[in-house]
Amino acid sequence: MLARVYITLKNGVLDPQGKAILGSLQDLGFEDTSDVRVGKYIEVQVDAKTASAARERVAQMCQKLLANTVIENYHIEVMEES
Amino acid sequence: MLARVYITLKNGVLDPQGKAILGSLQDLGFEDTSDVRVGKYIEVQVDAKTASAARERVAQMCQKLLANTVIENYHIEVMEES
Repeated sequence: MLARVYITLKNGVLDPQGKAILGSLQDLGFEDTSDVRVGKYIEVQVDAKTASAARERVAQMCQKLLANTVIENYHIEVMEES
Repeated sequence: MLARVYITLKNGVLDPQGKAILGSLQDLGFEDTSDVRVGKYIEVQVDAKTASAARERVAQMCQKLLANTVIENYHIEVMEES
């Protein structure tokens, strides 16, 4: 089963990478850009019987490795196999 | 207007970061994981009158800076302001 994981910085956490990209975009003429926040998008193929079982496993992966839960949020979408 | 950009490696492009995460997950006991692909998730606040104008601007940003279009695909979602 394919799970999509979106990992983003929590509100209030400084995003130096986002700031750097914002500056570069504005230098390139995109002054209409006011903010940039950068996160991770991870696709995980996991062997599971149901979507909820896959979601549970991937949440454990986020807790243990994929996300730094002190400063990051994670959101999981499981693609049901047709 | 908020635009969400998903940047992923094109099929066939080696993903060393994904392979490293896969190995770590399996070492942590997640043997039910068979593949991991890592990409970027970027939120961009752009000043635009319409969603399609925002999409066009962000596509230009992807072409010029955010994505390496030789090896990466990008997908843009614009959040309509209610």
